[in-house]
Amino acid sequence: MKLVSFETAGHHGRVAHLGALVTGDADTGELVDLGAATRALLAAEHIADEGARRIAAALVPSSLLGFIEGGARSRGLADEALATALERGWDRDPHGARIRYDASEITHLPAISDPPLLRDFMAFEEHLLNVFPKLGREIPDEWYRRPVYYKGNPSAVGAHEQDVAIPTYADRLDLEFEFAAIIGRAGVDIPEEDALSYIFGYTVYDDFSARDIQEAEMTVGLGPAKGKDFLGAHVLGPVVVTADELGDPYALRMTAFVNGVNWTDGSSADMHWKFEQMIAYASRDELVRVGEVFGSGTVGHGSGVEQSKWLEPGDVVELTVEGIGTLRNRVVATQA
Amino acid sequence: MKLVSFETAGHHGRVAHLGALVTGDADTGELVDLGAATRALLAAEHIADEGARRIAAALVPSSLLGFIEGGARSRGLADEALATALERGWDRDPHGARIRYDASEITHLPAISDPPLLRDFMAFEEHLLNVFPKLGREIPDEWYRRPVYYKGNPSAVGAHEQDVAIPTYADRLDLEFEFAAIIGRAGVDIPEEDALSYIFGYTVYDDFSARDIQEAEMTVGLGPAKGKDFLGAHVLGPVVVTADELGDPYALRMTAFVNGVNWTDGSSADMHWKFEQMIAYASRDELVRVGEVFGSGTVGHGSGVEQSKWLEPGDVVELTVEGIGTLRNRVVATQA
Repeated sequence: MKLVSFETAGHHGRVAHLGALVTGDADTGELVDLGAATRALLAAEHIADEGARRIAAALVPSSLLGFIEGGARSRGLADEALATALERGWDRDPHGARIRYDASEITHLPAISDPPLLRDFMAFEEHLLNVFPKLGREIPDEWYRRPVYYKGNPSAVGAHEQDVAIPTYADRLDLEFEFAAIIGRAGVDIPEEDALSYIFGYTVYDDFSARDIQEAEMTVGLGPAKGKDFLGAHVLGPVVVTADELGDPYALRMTAFVNGVNWTDGSSADMHWKFEQMIAYASRDELVRVGEVFGSGTVGHGSGVEQSKWLEPGDVVELTVEGIGTLRNRVVATQA
Repeated sequence: MKLVSFETAGHHGRVAHLGALVTGDADTGELVDLGAATRALLAAEHIADEGARRIAAALVPSSLLGFIEGGARSRGLADEALATALERGWDRDPHGARIRYDASEITHLPAISDPPLLRDFMAFEEHLLNVFPKLGREIPDEWYRRPVYYKGNPSAVGAHEQDVAIPTYADRLDLEFEFAAIIGRAGVDIPEEDALSYIFGYTVYDDFSARDIQEAEMTVGLGPAKGKDFLGAHVLGPVVVTADELGDPYALRMTAFVNGVNWTDGSSADMHWKFEQMIAYASRDELVRVGEVFGSGTVGHGSGVEQSKWLEPGDVVELTVEGIGTLRNRVVATQA
């Protein structure tokens, strides 16, 4: 399933939805609202309105995090509702709420809002081979010993097609082309051999970075903060592909275009550190929670700093991960 | 008000409570359960049981985060309930739930559970003057330019009197004696001159650290992760003193004892960076949310690394911040 978090505006203000992309892509395809489809399914089973609303809200809520928390029970009901709605051609739930949307009608939300934690790793050696020499350093030995990561501010997530403003305090904005796994099951001390089964799904991740600030901060040793965390900087989208649908996460072509010019042509096959190693490492003596985001780190040539290029207002960044989709954002000047 | 997050065990399993410390300290004093006191107050006003339960749950919930989210409305009702319960000597709510507890009867929970973010700063120059030479470095210039911080895993919080296990993957456990502000009001671009009014209250913070791991991780530049984040490592407690009750946060004596031996005698007066500067800095182009924890960083001589000492199983660490209280934890060996 390809899940899309989106909102619509109408008489009731802005309303959040969780949808499944059923045809085409996140820009031009068609969506089924899973909550409305579930209410329609339950009504067709002669379940009372109040019960149907309550069951749908509990099992297939509009928040992806809530949906993931419902585990196989939520997924099972959503699968059933989606299949039935498509088969019977339902367009509205019994109270007139729309079940079908065109992608062109909706506003994307971050693929997941308010994840409990955003751990961003650094899995691709090529990115480091390109970056460290520019900093006058070699790749630290420790990088080969453990899958290191920093933690981003989970409230600074952004969405597909949401403009990214250069922070007021920064001069050099860069992109970081990554993809991310979203955790589906909580655990402590998760064995590496089981760890892939803890992944709910995957999304594209653009970790926009204020390079001048990041470099300054990192001289103190506490890792990046304001260099990575600003409004909408951690862009996740346009969809979350469930792990069962994506298949092998280590065979995905990764291509980036800025203003239509190709910057990156890489592959997830080049990950030195795998998600199962990251999950096993992070969960040692520590809880990994449902909905946590594990970023892959930047694919080789997946940033401007590797190529001594920076983003300017008006630039359009498009990141495509095979099997997931294309994440697009426009850079805008700081609002003064 | 001095707020205590605690749990009790009984016929209904473990139940969480939010209490106010009304006499003595967090080890030997007396507590009022604010939820039960609120239900009793509402019953005395002839409000129906169902309404009283619903209003109390919404305004004075057992979660401190929920209570802070209720702002002045929650605080106002809790103040009223507390004063009335004390004045009238109430011991039980109308359904027989206890209003009064002795501190000796309860199990402390982390001062705040599931804060949305834990930003830990490094405000005390003396700590750096003691630590950086041991690493063969001077204090980086950047530290004087901006209040840098790392972000801890908010699910790795621990409680007063909760044992802290040395992580299985680490050899050298250390304490870090800090105190922390908890944010009471959300904002972006909060002006420094208003920022103190965004603080709900303060608590003591022991940022237990696995030094060998932290040092290894920090060679890569992404900041600490497994060196700081393990089960119960970010200990917050024993109480949260509201900002109005604490008064000046920059005039607090800070003393630490390990096994009864004094390790630290410092003062919050020595903070080079103030909480209002941290809040203004963190909120630039970024959302600071209700319930976020802002750690002060380690007070001078507030860690073992400054004195080339490490913690061993059986060690008892007691950190006292004047006006807040004493946070106590015992170190235990790794469970094999």
